[in-house]
Amino acid sequence: MKRLVLGVQYDGSSWQGWQTQPSGNTVQDALEKALQLFTGTADIRVTCAGRTDAGVHGIEQVVHFDTDLDRAVYSWVNGVNAFLPASVAVQWAKELPLDPESDDNFHARFSARARTYHYILHNCAVRSPMWMNRAGWVFRPLDVERMRAAAAHLIGEHDFTSFRASGCQAKTPVKNMYSIQIQRQGEMIIFTLRASAFLHHMVRNIVGSLIFVGTGKRDPEWMGEVLTSLNREIAAPTFMPDGLYLAKIDYEDKWQLPQRELAETLAFLSFL
Amino acid sequence: MKRLVLGVQYDGSSWQGWQTQPSGNTVQDALEKALQLFTGTADIRVTCAGRTDAGVHGIEQVVHFDTDLDRAVYSWVNGVNAFLPASVAVQWAKELPLDPESDDNFHARFSARARTYHYILHNCAVRSPMWMNRAGWVFRPLDVERMRAAAAHLIGEHDFTSFRASGCQAKTPVKNMYSIQIQRQGEMIIFTLRASAFLHHMVRNIVGSLIFVGTGKRDPEWMGEVLTSLNREIAAPTFMPDGLYLAKIDYEDKWQLPQRELAETLAFLSFL
Repeated sequence: MKRLVLGVQYDGSSWQGWQTQPSGNTVQDALEKALQLFTGTADIRVTCAGRTDAGVHGIEQVVHFDTDLDRAVYSWVNGVNAFLPASVAVQWAKELPLDPESDDNFHARFSARARTYHYILHNCAVRSPMWMNRAGWVFRPLDVERMRAAAAHLIGEHDFTSFRASGCQAKTPVKNMYSIQIQRQGEMIIFTLRASAFLHHMVRNIVGSLIFVGTGKRDPEWMGEVLTSLNREIAAPTFMPDGLYLAKIDYEDKWQLPQRELAETLAFLSFL
Repeated sequence: MKRLVLGVQYDGSSWQGWQTQPSGNTVQDALEKALQLFTGTADIRVTCAGRTDAGVHGIEQVVHFDTDLDRAVYSWVNGVNAFLPASVAVQWAKELPLDPESDDNFHARFSARARTYHYILHNCAVRSPMWMNRAGWVFRPLDVERMRAAAAHLIGEHDFTSFRASGCQAKTPVKNMYSIQIQRQGEMIIFTLRASAFLHHMVRNIVGSLIFVGTGKRDPEWMGEVLTSLNREIAAPTFMPDGLYLAKIDYEDKWQLPQRELAETLAFLSFL
């Protein structure tokens, strides 16, 4: 047996999220079906680095599964993609050893050291069909400097209960927020959040609250009050999923995964 | 009566093209329905600058219609957009005089001086769901210099019969091609074609033929032979609509339309 690791990209707008559902209309269902068709094996189940909600996109999700099949690495990409719909595609594959005696096998979720999400926002008086399903929309002008000042309150290790969905299954609400970058490019604002891990709805709840500050509805200091209140009632409502992208999972270099650089996860979405 | 002019943007992937159909599933149908709901008038019919096919996008289509209703200009944008689906939105409105005695009234189609289309191509060994419905895909490496040399044969006034769809209703196949720009940005290639007017399928037929040259299947000089043959059988097959965008219609300055600059038509699609 060996452990196959795949980088998977998907447009989430037509899927009911990542995790398998009885409806079968999830990205995991589509991927497992394609793997089963490609291999002729009925029981392939994949483990992912981070589950995403309905409407959320994956630029580079990472999954693993175990197999004793021998296939060329490029076949795990092109062969599987032949069985996937246009909205899902394997981007790369890596074969790693699997030692049943060892507790240091690669694991898509437990070997992850950090996660990075982008949130793409269209900030313009008029909505743009070009960004349909692909960006959030705020028609009131947003002040990026105010949002940066608010975001600074969230950096470091904190209990993020105030930004946690009620159904969240994480063992602990304490996560380490490494960085939050906010950049404006014309009508677009790009939020890039990197943390040890994220709670359910955490990015969308944080972005919603940053927008409250950006429009002037709240002051930047309010973000610190929300964080320390440990009360989900105080933060802004969960913002729309359309602009949320799982961009990059960090692993130790020893696994030698052919991942994209973080900058590329945005660069390949643009063409100017 | 006055003449209302609208700039309209749409993602064409879910529509059966621009022009009204009995099915009602076209962009024109959606826009006229929204105008009728907004105005409470049953008979508004719009005239567009350039009809687009199923799957082709409009960054800035221009339409006009006549009305004696008084509405604030911003209402023709925000009010109509409230009745449009996410894939279509009015971007701007302009009220112009309509003089029944004059033959110099503005006309979305007949007043147009030039049209510009972008074709966006993803040139990468592996397909990307991020560009689903929004870019063409070629997995073989493309040589941009070879394609530029081929495109040079098309500049100027020519009979473009070789790139014309059989059902094309244009009065003449003679058009003036002002420029063809081809730029590579990482994995993306952007074609920008500007001409007096385009025949049916002309951009997609030209792009398909340029790809034949870019992959090495044909030499750049072949493009000149295709053009002078006046024979649709010789050019490459019509390329997929996914990456085609009607970007800009040029009008005389005297109309003072609040159009985007051409550079912006791409800039607002990117965010880096």
